[in-house]
Amino acid sequence: MSPRHLISIDDLDRAGIERILDRAESFAEVSGREIKKVPALRGRTVVNLFYEASTRTSSSFELAAKRLSADVVSVRSAGSSVDKGESLKDTIQTLSAYDPAAIVIRSQYAGAAQLVAGWTPAAVINAGDGKHEHPTQALLDVFTLRRRLGQLDGTRIWIVGDVLHSRVARSNILGFKRMGAEVTVAGPPTLIPRHIEALGCQAKATLDELHKADVVYVLRMQHERMREAFVPSLREYAARYQISTARLTPGQLLMHPGPVNRGVELSSDAIDSSQALLGEQVKAGVAVRMAVLYELLAASPVLAAVA
Amino acid sequence: MSPRHLISIDDLDRAGIERILDRAESFAEVSGREIKKVPALRGRTVVNLFYEASTRTSSSFELAAKRLSADVVSVRSAGSSVDKGESLKDTIQTLSAYDPAAIVIRSQYAGAAQLVAGWTPAAVINAGDGKHEHPTQALLDVFTLRRRLGQLDGTRIWIVGDVLHSRVARSNILGFKRMGAEVTVAGPPTLIPRHIEALGCQAKATLDELHKADVVYVLRMQHERMREAFVPSLREYAARYQISTARLTPGQLLMHPGPVNRGVELSSDAIDSSQALLGEQVKAGVAVRMAVLYELLAASPVLAAVA
Amino acid sequence: MSPRHLISIDDLDRAGIERILDRAESFAEVSGREIKKVPALRGRTVVNLFYEASTRTSSSFELAAKRLSADVVSVRSAGSSVDKGESLKDTIQTLSAYDPAAIVIRSQYAGAAQLVAGWTPAAVINAGDGKHEHPTQALLDVFTLRRRLGQLDGTRIWIVGDVLHSRVARSNILGFKRMGAEVTVAGPPTLIPRHIEALGCQAKATLDELHKADVVYVLRMQHERMREAFVPSLREYAARYQISTARLTPGQLLMHPGPVNRGVELSSDAIDSSQALLGEQVKAGVAVRMAVLYELLAASPVLAAVA
Repeated sequence: MSPRHLISIDDLDRAGIERILDRAESFAEVSGREIKKVPALRGRTVVNLFYEASTRTSSSFELAAKRLSADVVSVRSAGSSVDKGESLKDTIQTLSAYDPAAIVIRSQYAGAAQLVAGWTPAAVINAGDGKHEHPTQALLDVFTLRRRLGQLDGTRIWIVGDVLHSRVARSNILGFKRMGAEVTVAGPPTLIPRHIEALGCQAKATLDELHKADVVYVLRMQHERMREAFVPSLREYAARYQISTARLTPGQLLMHPGPVNRGVELSSDAIDSSQALLGEQVKAGVAVRMAVLYELLAASPVLAAVA
Repeated sequence: MSPRHLISIDDLDRAGIERILDRAESFAEVSGREIKKVPALRGRTVVNLFYEASTRTSSSFELAAKRLSADVVSVRSAGSSVDKGESLKDTIQTLSAYDPAAIVIRSQYAGAAQLVAGWTPAAVINAGDGKHEHPTQALLDVFTLRRRLGQLDGTRIWIVGDVLHSRVARSNILGFKRMGAEVTVAGPPTLIPRHIEALGCQAKATLDELHKADVVYVLRMQHERMREAFVPSLREYAARYQISTARLTPGQLLMHPGPVNRGVELSSDAIDSSQALLGEQVKAGVAVRMAVLYELLAASPVLAAVA
Repeated sequence: MSPRHLISIDDLDRAGIERILDRAESFAEVSGREIKKVPALRGRTVVNLFYEASTRTSSSFELAAKRLSADVVSVRSAGSSVDKGESLKDTIQTLSAYDPAAIVIRSQYAGAAQLVAGWTPAAVINAGDGKHEHPTQALLDVFTLRRRLGQLDGTRIWIVGDVLHSRVARSNILGFKRMGAEVTVAGPPTLIPRHIEALGCQAKATLDELHKADVVYVLRMQHERMREAFVPSLREYAARYQISTARLTPGQLLMHPGPVNRGVELSSDAIDSSQALLGEQVKAGVAVRMAVLYELLAASPVLAAVA
């Protein structure tokens, strides 16, 4: 059987997403035990290849693999051959010689994970490739909402902030839509991609109708966007788009992929409010990544072949 | 039961210290076996969060956790969300979502570990917070001396060097005192805190009476103190305060928390002499940290609740 | 029994090399299984101490140790006491206090591994010391060739490129010779050490007779050599010494220790050709390092005592 990958949330149809979520439920139960470990991937090797700084995604994948009893090899660009100018292709071929069951890759380049999948017999999991996609983020967010709401059909989700530069926005629009949600993106016009409606969502330049949302999903504002003049200033951005408890209606749920810039895209009171699901999202991350690893490596495949 | 932490050596009374030392004896025996491993924490997660460079403390905690069969996730500030400006609180809440049994934290800020304990249900172990405390260092030093001397009651211990900036000095004064030792601090007046006697120790500006000590505990001299003009020059500091074999009397024991600046606070001959316990201190570190993890996570608690 | 080390390929006679290669065959079989793990070193500690950036060697040793079920502690110079100016001797004495079964060391200084062996009771494995040696590289290359060719007696091997600065060249000349091969080195005269013939090989300044080789072993060209004026330019170097498929005869085997500078010492078509053994070399690395760890730590010793 040919190798299977998770490059884009589009690799999964609704049944595939649901099967991963169901599996993640059972792993969430494992993570709630005192002994948070199952022998499913004992003796198998998972390579974590991170070309960008990351705490939560890299440690989440590392822990997911360890809780499945896999051996994990973590390679970061600092202190690696990457610094010696080795090409990505050569790095992948080197790591593939270890016969890993999976390669988890984060790269600053859109399309990197797809290329990697063409160079290795291992299962490739995209942990973020430039502005392109971050499919396990979408899965963990869908998982978090499904746990809260039962299902996503008809749920109105607003994705607020820097949609233009966000791989999370892209994967989550696709994932939320596939599960039946209605998605609206909102933010400064300079940070909303043209033709975003082609993905099946609405676009808003203001938060005037934010009260219509069931879920407010706030994106991280990259500080460097200020220097690039996409927004006039953090102060002005916060005044118009920051989500505070004052801007939320009581029943709305609040999400953010992290790490948060407190006082920029989110106010401190909002982060710490009971409407915020940020901790549940992180917790879901381990369970969902265990499920993705398990489904790709140990179970009958649910993911469509890529490339 | 509420979570228990080790933030300060003051969290432990004498019986609590002795119980950890007794437990450490049994783990020292494990570390002397060919198979240096027990299943006590199998399937549990220990997070090592180090915001300061460290070889010995971080690898010692890592090894202690692994020898207890825990899964370890190490997060360093380089390559982590910390670089993206995430607050400590948000980092802790993220890591807490992994449901770790313990978070081991080193920070450049005094009080950081105490704050962390208020933000997580995990047991928090302070691995050094600014100039405040380093309680496992005190425990391993007490362990090392108890092994050599049977007990510390009445033992005269001189702590020599930069007491002002040293978290080790602070924790060790408290720990040595609690075990019945008589503590004297000695060093340049600019590097001895005012009112240090309030901790129950004597202060000396010279080493003239060093021969009265049973144990000479030398602190690391931070090079940056030179630039800050706390001492006129390394040469002059060494002339007045460096501990060499010539300055030691034959029966005295020599200790240092490491890493050593050879030729500054310690001469090479002193480091390599049979009076030096530096290797025993490092070895004790693994056993004592295994004991702290075990007592906090697996045994009935001996540590007072903090915060 | 005194500790045994692998500092130089010269520590091994032909029978010793063959015993490691035979053992590596059995571990290559393990690495081909779904569960790539044996309990041989369970509960034992392996320290990886890398003072130079490395992906492949450090991850290969790490994986080898994990597949033998050892606990691995990795120390890199970034973020370690090394940054605080601790001497190598003190670092080794600290790490030795953990009672590791082995210390794997890479250093920028020739002779470092030999010194380390004098400071620790652990088995020391040289993972590259300056321009001196890299014995496990030689072993994995011999392993790769023995698998292909049955044996190396009479095999004509050309080592091409920057021989002067290459620890790989030095270890491989010795290793290939010991196994009966005929070795020729070729490259710009500025990059061939004087008196290299004393090692029992021939030296050539051109590739005119490259067709006589059975195996073409290409060395990495360090970019920094350009700045040091050992070669006039990368373009000129490539024109005279780059190995492309056009320069190879059909039956020749192509090897390179990695990481490759594509388009400098090797053309892309050569790297990707079926004559290239680069992937097999990397794969052999894990099996050979498992064998070295096993022979040093678990089996009756085959390595001569060093120092």
